[in-house]
Amino acid sequence: MDDIEAIKQLKARYFRTMDSKDWAAMRQVLCDDVVMDSTDSGGSVIAGGDDCIRFLQQAIGEVVTVHHGHMPEIELTSATTANGIWAMEDMLRWPDGRELHGYGHYIETYDKSDACWRIKTLKLTRLRIDMTEPRG
Amino acid sequence: MDDIEAIKQLKARYFRTMDSKDWAAMRQVLCDDVVMDSTDSGGSVIAGGDDCIRFLQQAIGEVVTVHHGHMPEIELTSATTANGIWAMEDMLRWPDGRELHGYGHYIETYDKSDACWRIKTLKLTRLRIDMTEPRG
Amino acid sequence: MDDIEAIKQLKARYFRTMDSKDWAAMRQVLCDDVVMDSTDSGGSVIAGGDDCIRFLQQAIGEVVTVHHGHMPEIELTSATTANGIWAMEDMLRWPDGRELHGYGHYIETYDKSDACWRIKTLKLTRLRIDMTEPRG
Repeated sequence: MDDIEAIKQLKARYFRTMDSKDWAAMRQVLCDDVVMDSTDSGGSVIAGGDDCIRFLQQAIGEVVTVHHGHMPEIELTSATTANGIWAMEDMLRWPDGRELHGYGHYIETYDKSDACWRIKTLKLTRLRIDMTEPRG
Repeated sequence: MDDIEAIKQLKARYFRTMDSKDWAAMRQVLCDDVVMDSTDSGGSVIAGGDDCIRFLQQAIGEVVTVHHGHMPEIELTSATTANGIWAMEDMLRWPDGRELHGYGHYIETYDKSDACWRIKTLKLTRLRIDMTEPRG
Repeated sequence: MDDIEAIKQLKARYFRTMDSKDWAAMRQVLCDDVVMDSTDSGGSVIAGGDDCIRFLQQAIGEVVTVHHGHMPEIELTSATTANGIWAMEDMLRWPDGRELHGYGHYIETYDKSDACWRIKTLKLTRLRIDMTEPRG
């Protein structure tokens, strides 16, 4: 499998393990020193793979989530580094019935070590966010 | 075209021929002994390419359907076999106005014969299903 | 990067530059003599890269748009020509609150010159279009 395809499958595991709440498997797609920046989406900057997983577990552990990535633009910048842009859509449904439906892009970098690509940095930008309150 | 790309295009034809109700072309993407399992989505297990097409024709022949696949994880397991996982979203609108909007994953296997990949088994798992009734 | 991957990234730039209203960058993904046909979607036929960009700027410059492409079927027909089909979904929100949510396929051709793929022709077909009026 070539590096571009390997990075696409890395991001596929990122989405699938998040939505299926498989936190141990999700930890494997992140570098130890990953930085995730969701400030453009009302979130914060979180550093470190373990801290990112702990944050996500708390934030969406009880939330039904659907995250999809589209239209990757992966650029290999060396044998062990790469940049990527993904269009994205996410849907969150909280236990109390509130919902978020959002659209935007991930701007990312990747690192390869031990023959394995991982996410090094991730920044989420937004085109649109719709919040809805529970009915009734 | 490499095998991973060929399997992606196979699945693209699966979706496109289903949504455009091109049943003869859709039959071509399925192995003769395909097994489609939608029990996790309230459906059943159907075996055989001809039976699958007959079932789909009855079930959604008059339904406006949109099926999209995302984030493939294709793994070649031999020169003629492969596994795949796809994130998915589907929207069905029945003639009476009822609608289904669902999200989940396909867990699949593929077989290559006569230089052509086909779907061998398909299991649909669900993250979320929303049903809506006609207004008014 | 192989030609199929290059065409996927071309289409990714098409969507991203449209939704981020980066018209100068979007012009670069179109051939000078591009023809865009959206008659099946209630639109018209527009010819020429500059005219297409002018049209889009007027039509959606003030509209929040989200366009996603899925499940590409890219076929190389020579060293410098290719065909493609993409499933698509688009969401438009006008300043007055009206919304369009649509689904369909792009049928496209591509041309390579100066080592760069560009969109030569694009035809949009539709599976479903939902229009909603502002609430209240």
